[in-house]
Amino acid sequence: MELALADLHVSVSDPASASMNFLNEVAARFPDAVSLAAGRPYEGFHSAADLPRYLDTYLAHLERLGLDAAQRDRHLLQYGRTNGHLGELIARMLAKDEGVEVPPEAVMVTSGAQEAMVVALRGLCAGPEDVVLAVDPCYVGFTGAARLLGIEVVPVPETASGLDPEQVLAVARAVRASGRRPRALYLVPDFANPSGVSLPPAARRRLLEVAAEADLLVLEDDPYGLFGLDGRPGSSLKALDTDRRVLYLGSFAKTCFPGARIGFLVADQRVTDRRGARTLLAEQLSTVKSLLTVNSSPIAQALVGGFLLESGCSLRTAVKQKAAFYRHGLRTLLAALQHSFADRPDVRWNAPDGGFFVVVEVPVDADEALLEVSGRDYGVLWTPMSFFHSGDGGRRALRLSCSALEPAQIEEGVRRLARLLADRA
Amino acid sequence: MELALADLHVSVSDPASASMNFLNEVAARFPDAVSLAAGRPYEGFHSAADLPRYLDTYLAHLERLGLDAAQRDRHLLQYGRTNGHLGELIARMLAKDEGVEVPPEAVMVTSGAQEAMVVALRGLCAGPEDVVLAVDPCYVGFTGAARLLGIEVVPVPETASGLDPEQVLAVARAVRASGRRPRALYLVPDFANPSGVSLPPAARRRLLEVAAEADLLVLEDDPYGLFGLDGRPGSSLKALDTDRRVLYLGSFAKTCFPGARIGFLVADQRVTDRRGARTLLAEQLSTVKSLLTVNSSPIAQALVGGFLLESGCSLRTAVKQKAAFYRHGLRTLLAALQHSFADRPDVRWNAPDGGFFVVVEVPVDADEALLEVSGRDYGVLWTPMSFFHSGDGGRRALRLSCSALEPAQIEEGVRRLARLLADRA
Repeated sequence: MELALADLHVSVSDPASASMNFLNEVAARFPDAVSLAAGRPYEGFHSAADLPRYLDTYLAHLERLGLDAAQRDRHLLQYGRTNGHLGELIARMLAKDEGVEVPPEAVMVTSGAQEAMVVALRGLCAGPEDVVLAVDPCYVGFTGAARLLGIEVVPVPETASGLDPEQVLAVARAVRASGRRPRALYLVPDFANPSGVSLPPAARRRLLEVAAEADLLVLEDDPYGLFGLDGRPGSSLKALDTDRRVLYLGSFAKTCFPGARIGFLVADQRVTDRRGARTLLAEQLSTVKSLLTVNSSPIAQALVGGFLLESGCSLRTAVKQKAAFYRHGLRTLLAALQHSFADRPDVRWNAPDGGFFVVVEVPVDADEALLEVSGRDYGVLWTPMSFFHSGDGGRRALRLSCSALEPAQIEEGVRRLARLLADRA
Repeated sequence: MELALADLHVSVSDPASASMNFLNEVAARFPDAVSLAAGRPYEGFHSAADLPRYLDTYLAHLERLGLDAAQRDRHLLQYGRTNGHLGELIARMLAKDEGVEVPPEAVMVTSGAQEAMVVALRGLCAGPEDVVLAVDPCYVGFTGAARLLGIEVVPVPETASGLDPEQVLAVARAVRASGRRPRALYLVPDFANPSGVSLPPAARRRLLEVAAEADLLVLEDDPYGLFGLDGRPGSSLKALDTDRRVLYLGSFAKTCFPGARIGFLVADQRVTDRRGARTLLAEQLSTVKSLLTVNSSPIAQALVGGFLLESGCSLRTAVKQKAAFYRHGLRTLLAALQHSFADRPDVRWNAPDGGFFVVVEVPVDADEALLEVSGRDYGVLWTPMSFFHSGDGGRRALRLSCSALEPAQIEEGVRRLARLLADRA
C-alpha cells in the first residue's frame, strides 16, 4: 500500500511542523553545535531517582484524604476521572501563586498544555464561521492545533509592547463584519514564545474590556510567568478576569518536568443547556478530552501532585532555584549580545523582562539556508523567526533561547553567532 | 460570561458521550449495584508498589543500551521523541506474540488507543469527501473521535459472525458511487466491544481482499485479542496483511494497566512525497501526534517498558494470569445466564469465544429508563446496546461485561438481572 503525502490531511504537512522538523534534523546533523534554538528546560534540576519519592508523597496525601490501599491503587492504576484528579491542588496553587480563585471543577488536567489548546479550540469553535484570533508571531503548537481541527486563525500583529488591544478590537470587528464569528483570542501575556514580549498592566485591563466589547473569549497561555527577571510584568489575565472571559492554559513542563506531560486548562465559564441547567465549561469540555485521550495518566498526575505537595502547592516556591537559573541565563544572553554586537548597529535585539527567548534582528535573511551554514560552519543553532509568522514577517530575525544551556554555553553560542554575522556583513 | 451548550461544538454534546455520562451518573447514584456495565479491567493484578520496580527495570534496560545516568534522566524527564521510545520493544512483542513483523519506525506510542484513533483518522481523512466505514454497533470512542474531527462514519452492520466482507465491499462501492471516498474501515476482529463477536479466519482473509478491491485501509483495534477462551479465533488482520493495508491499534490498558494511558499505532504503509522520497505512515503521522499531545509521557512509557521487559517482551506471557481470570469470568457469566434464563426462551444471548462482553436480547426496551429502575430497585447495571448503534438498532438488547468483577459478583449480577426481567415479563 502506497500513499501520497499530498493525499493525507493538511496538518500532516503542517508548514510550522516541517520547519521544526528541519530544525531538529539540522540539530541532529550537527550535534556539537551550541543550540540557542531549543526552548526546552534545563536538565539539571531533576533526576529519575526523584520519581518514587513524588509518588510516595502523593500516595501519602491520598491516605490522609482517607483512601485505603485498594482505593489508592485504583486511583493510580485504573482509568480515572476524565478531567483528572489534580483539580483541588491546582486550584489551591492558582489561588496562592496568582490570586486566581476558581473551583476545582473548573480545572481540567491535560496531557500537556498542547492538549488543553486542542480541547479549548474544539469545544469553542462549533462551525465553519467560527475563527480564532492569535498573536502574530505565534507559538506554532497553537496554529498547528487549529489547522488540525480545520479552524481558521486570524493573526493580530504583535508590537514591541505586546498586542495592541485596539488592534484586537479592530480585527475582531473586521472578522465579524465579514460574516465570521471571532470566538477567542490566543496570546502569551508574559515573556511570549517566540518574541519574549510581555503585555503591560494597562494593556491587560484594556484587553479584557475589548474582549467583552467584541464578545471574545481569551486563551491565556502561561508557561513562563514565573520566570521574570523581576516578578511578573502584570497580574495574569485570569487574575484580572472578573467576567469569566479568560480560559487559562497551564503547563508543568517548565516548572516541574516535561516527562510527566501534564498541563491543565482552567475554564470556569458557565454553560447553560436547553433546559437552563448550568455547568462549568471545563466540565462540558470533558467530553472532548475523553475523545482525545480518555484521561491523562493518573500516575503522571500523581508525580506532579507529589511535586506540588512538596512545596505546599506553591509553584512560585517550588521553582525558586529554577527561576534563579533562568534569570541568570537570560541576563547572560543579553550581556553577551551587548558584548558581541556593541559595534554592530545593524544587529538589534529586544530586552525581555523574563522568560526563555530573545529576538535578534539581523541584516541578512535568517532562513533555513543560513541556519544550515550556521550549524555546519559556525557551530551554533537558532530559530528563524519566519517559522512563527503567518505571513512573510520575521525574515531578518531570529529567536535565541537560553533555557537549556549553562551560562558559558550561552556566551560561546553568541560568540559563534557574532562570527557568522561578521562573515555575512 | 455565559455560553450556551448549543453554541459549542457538536462533539461536546456527543450522544454516545451523553449516554456514557448517564451510565456513570447512574453508577454513582447506586454505588451498591453490581456493575455488569463497566468494561474496565479487574483491579487485583497490580499495585502502586510495583511502579518503582517497573521504572528500575526500564532504567536498567537503558543502561544496558549504553545510556549514562544523565542520558537516562533526560530519557524519562525531558520532552521525548514524538512517536515515543517503545517502538523497538513493541515491534519485538508483535513479532513474538502475533507474528507481525514491522520495523520500530512503524510504531507510534500514543496516549492510549484513543489517541491512536484520532491520529489515524486525522491523518487519513484529508477532505470533506473522505469518510470512514465502521462496524455497527461500534465502540463509541471511535465514532466520537470521528465526530470530533468532523469525519463522517458510514456504518456497516455486524452479523452474528462479525462483518460480512461482501457487505463491506457493497458499502464501500456505494460510498464511492455517491462521490465520497471510503478511506478506511474500523473494526475489532477479536471479541468486539460491544458485541463480543469475532471474525472467522476465512472472513479475515476475504476482508483483506475486499479492502484491496475497494482501496480501503483497515483500522484493526485489538484490545482483547489475548483474552480468548481458547486462543485467538484467527490471526490478527495485521499478521495476514501482505499488502500493508492494515493500521493496527494497540492498547496496554487491559494487558498492563489503564493508569499508564499508553497505547500504540502501527502504520507501516509507505508514504511518497512530491519529490518521490519515501517514509512510513507512522513517521508522517508524528506531526499530527505532536499537535495533539507533543509526545506521550516517557515516564508512563517507561512503566510499560519495564512491564514488557519483565516478560521478555511477550504480552502473551505477561497476561497468563489475567487471561485465566477473564476466561473464568466469561465462563461464569455464560453459565449464570444459562442457569437464570434456561426457562426464558424470550431472553437470548450470544456466546463469545473470549473477551469481556456478552450481548443479551431481552423482550423489553433496554433503555435508560429501564437502566435506572435496574440500578435503583434491582441493584444491577448494564449497558443499553442502543448506545453503540448508529441508527435505532439494539433497542431490546443489552451488553454485559464481566471484566471488572469476581465470579461471585457476576453470578449475583445475573440473578438480579433475572429478577428485573421476570418482573417485566
